[in-house]
Amino acid sequence: MENPFNDEYFMKKALQEAEVAFDKGEIPVGAVIVVKDRIIARAHNLTEMLNDVTAHAEMQAITAAANFLGGKYLKDCTLYVTLEPCQMCAGALYWSQISKIVYGARDEQRGCINLNTKLHPKTTIEGGVLESEASQLMKQFFIEKRNLN
Amino acid sequence: MENPFNDEYFMKKALQEAEVAFDKGEIPVGAVIVVKDRIIARAHNLTEMLNDVTAHAEMQAITAAANFLGGKYLKDCTLYVTLEPCQMCAGALYWSQISKIVYGARDEQRGCINLNTKLHPKTTIEGGVLESEASQLMKQFFIEKRNLN
Repeated sequence: MENPFNDEYFMKKALQEAEVAFDKGEIPVGAVIVVKDRIIARAHNLTEMLNDVTAHAEMQAITAAANFLGGKYLKDCTLYVTLEPCQMCAGALYWSQISKIVYGARDEQRGCINLNTKLHPKTTIEGGVLESEASQLMKQFFIEKRNLN
Repeated sequence: MENPFNDEYFMKKALQEAEVAFDKGEIPVGAVIVVKDRIIARAHNLTEMLNDVTAHAEMQAITAAANFLGGKYLKDCTLYVTLEPCQMCAGALYWSQISKIVYGARDEQRGCINLNTKLHPKTTIEGGVLESEASQLMKQFFIEKRNLN
């Protein structure tokens, strides 16, 4: 039997978080952190509600996962995030020494790949998991925002 | 009469924060955020105490300053920090649109300058203010740490 706990499974959980952000009027980005097929942290973007540019989904997930683990290094953990991390979040992931980053949609302008943010040598990164769902949610958000203003 | 509220004045306040970190066994980095000669946020590194790689002095100062101002953008603000910001902190400062960053000591390996972290076009950065005091405190910390282990 195929393991149901694959990348799509966990990215769906991250997308659910992004939808919660969407419903709060936040740019819809969600994240979960997983260790041994278990979700140890869930978070979504809260920059508007908290009035805080540092409140990206990934940052909150890193803090929550470290709190769960009782240590600040996220070895053997995988982050699933609906949007490619920015410089700040990739910089935080560098310090966390996380094992793997899986993102949904690319962020050509502000994502860590085109901006060459340095990741930890122990970290691998891959993208494109449920990419169209993640980018569709972002597009929908900005269309609705434009129509409201 | 010369304005006593110059870069050295505020960097000394950041150094006092770094000394508080030192006394707690934290890597001694301190930061203050200033608007119109008034300190609106003070913070020091707490990564060990909080078990959280995101708890750099700058990150906490950004959150505290935004909280004080009631808005997430730090326009017209200057950050004084004893050590050149890392990718994560520079990435957060990018989002904050802060006006100016003044740092003490360079961080050749993990600082934002050599790692080419993108700053906001509205942000200027300069370094070397009380550089020797800041780097001396770092050196002292790592010497003591080595001797304890």
